[in-house]
Amino acid sequence: MTSLKNDTFIKALLKQPVARTPVWMMRQAGRYLPEYRKIREQAGSFMNLCTHPELAAEVTLQPLRRFDFDAAILFSDILTIPDAMGLGLHFTESEGPKFLHPVRSAADIDKLPIPDPEMELRYVIDAVRLIRTTLAGQVPLIGFSGSPWTLATYMVEGGSSKSFRQVKGLMYEQPKLMHGLLAKLAQSVALYLNAQIRAGAQAVMVFDTWGGMLNSEDYLEFSLSYARQVKDQLISAMNGQKIPSILFTKGGGQWLEAMADTGYEALGLDWQTDVGLARARVGAKVALQGNMDPIALYAPPHVIQEKVTAILDKYGTGSGHVFNLGHGILPDVDPEHVKVMVDAVHDYRHAR
Amino acid sequence: MTSLKNDTFIKALLKQPVARTPVWMMRQAGRYLPEYRKIREQAGSFMNLCTHPELAAEVTLQPLRRFDFDAAILFSDILTIPDAMGLGLHFTESEGPKFLHPVRSAADIDKLPIPDPEMELRYVIDAVRLIRTTLAGQVPLIGFSGSPWTLATYMVEGGSSKSFRQVKGLMYEQPKLMHGLLAKLAQSVALYLNAQIRAGAQAVMVFDTWGGMLNSEDYLEFSLSYARQVKDQLISAMNGQKIPSILFTKGGGQWLEAMADTGYEALGLDWQTDVGLARARVGAKVALQGNMDPIALYAPPHVIQEKVTAILDKYGTGSGHVFNLGHGILPDVDPEHVKVMVDAVHDYRHAR
Repeated sequence: MTSLKNDTFIKALLKQPVARTPVWMMRQAGRYLPEYRKIREQAGSFMNLCTHPELAAEVTLQPLRRFDFDAAILFSDILTIPDAMGLGLHFTESEGPKFLHPVRSAADIDKLPIPDPEMELRYVIDAVRLIRTTLAGQVPLIGFSGSPWTLATYMVEGGSSKSFRQVKGLMYEQPKLMHGLLAKLAQSVALYLNAQIRAGAQAVMVFDTWGGMLNSEDYLEFSLSYARQVKDQLISAMNGQKIPSILFTKGGGQWLEAMADTGYEALGLDWQTDVGLARARVGAKVALQGNMDPIALYAPPHVIQEKVTAILDKYGTGSGHVFNLGHGILPDVDPEHVKVMVDAVHDYRHAR
Repeated sequence: MTSLKNDTFIKALLKQPVARTPVWMMRQAGRYLPEYRKIREQAGSFMNLCTHPELAAEVTLQPLRRFDFDAAILFSDILTIPDAMGLGLHFTESEGPKFLHPVRSAADIDKLPIPDPEMELRYVIDAVRLIRTTLAGQVPLIGFSGSPWTLATYMVEGGSSKSFRQVKGLMYEQPKLMHGLLAKLAQSVALYLNAQIRAGAQAVMVFDTWGGMLNSEDYLEFSLSYARQVKDQLISAMNGQKIPSILFTKGGGQWLEAMADTGYEALGLDWQTDVGLARARVGAKVALQGNMDPIALYAPPHVIQEKVTAILDKYGTGSGHVFNLGHGILPDVDPEHVKVMVDAVHDYRHAR
């Protein structure tokens, strides 16, 4: 494979020196781009985009044609693993993702298969291969998965939730069952991410979107320990190149020390967490990714520039920072504002 | 006025010795109680309950007839102040509270009056007087208000929000206007809480429900500094009795040190925050209130007892803890489970 023309993202994750802070954006391939909306309409459904590698690849590359991002991220859904386990993923207009067969009992958990990524998730792995080839070394490609806990929330609830009553009920009342489910998911996620790495992903990210809904004890026991099991099983290098991995727990700012002890090279920060304080707490161990409030992208350009500068000032000098939002970009942001953000990151120079 | 027969709640807030940890529950007067649902139906609307002192008093007292709570909390709405400012509060079935006249411009903010609590909010103050008299010293009565920032979110958004795009837009683009609005709200909240104290509230709580949606810098500037302005103006004692106040920022676990520096006697903790670590961080300065996950109340009694014990163990020996949930009780919890929680708190004895 061709070598990377721009490796600042990988270097920053490994805390190696970089000439400027790299930047990419969660949900950078998405609805705020008119070219995305066009192809999404042609595809007929969101899952059609995900399951056709040429469409997933096209959508992945769209933002890179507009913006000087330092990384591409696979376009896919967070719920591909439960779908491959046979839960019957479908999307409703008003309520988002739903599963036909939620997981509630010992029997439900026992019969869950561990998907073979090259078989049941072949469409994802093929997309990774195609994107990596098409990128031709322009920037690195990030693979991703939901965390075991986050996948479990959707599988037990049968879809999205506000209160997480079902999944917390299982956790509180039948913790052994919950651990059984999470162990299967940790194994599945590791296999899935390793298949993405073998197919060309040069870094991977684990999205623990709902870890922040747990209390501190339960977070460590039911979310973080399985994110660590995933990390323990990940391929650490391919063809002599290290494959860094990023752990992002939305709402996890109180647990950064424990997160930094799991072996992940970098932690994603939500926008509520102060990046300067976070660096003081765990910056010796891990790189940090984040963390502008996505809502700031609605503001006029000079405000966006101020917010970018404030975050870069707070992180301070030295490598180990990847600029990003603190959560995904919202669907109706003006794409010109994204350019303002990217340019502000790249043009920034630390005061001496 | 009669003296308190049970003052453990007040003593714990003041970090004075208590024989057992006091307990009450956010939204303890509410929909999980059949007797509440009955009176709510008769009243015809939620606001009818709030605006009729005899109904508000009855609803406030209902949970105390069932459970051995150590405090009563005024039954009212968080949005009474904006309503009294003329924003036209109403409730929709599906979307919750709405304002007819959201606040967006300098002109909107300029014309906002500072309500006189004994005039435009007389119905609340009358309810406080009636509840205090009816309680006859059984337990202390807690008055409350939304925080300036939290009230501002509803006033600018025109109701509830998920993204807080409008209010953050105002904050990012016109910070001076935002400060003008928040200063008016801080003054209004202080007047409102002081009127509640004069009418009989023996402690007050400020609910900063949406402070946790801000980044760290903005939280300090736009939420916490106005919660402090409120505290600075609060009456500190009545008839020789100290009136402690509690500040609760949902999602504020990362900012406890700054919160503890504002003068509030106690901080409310959401369930994500570890009460033992919180005590180690700020327990010398403030009492702590919380923080069981409300979802734990769906679990069977032995699980509820375990969760209660875990929190009391973590807080450890010595005064300064008020047991509570980490957020309001959910509407369909079995009231018997609340009794299990209250009894578990009261029966707990610290291991020696």
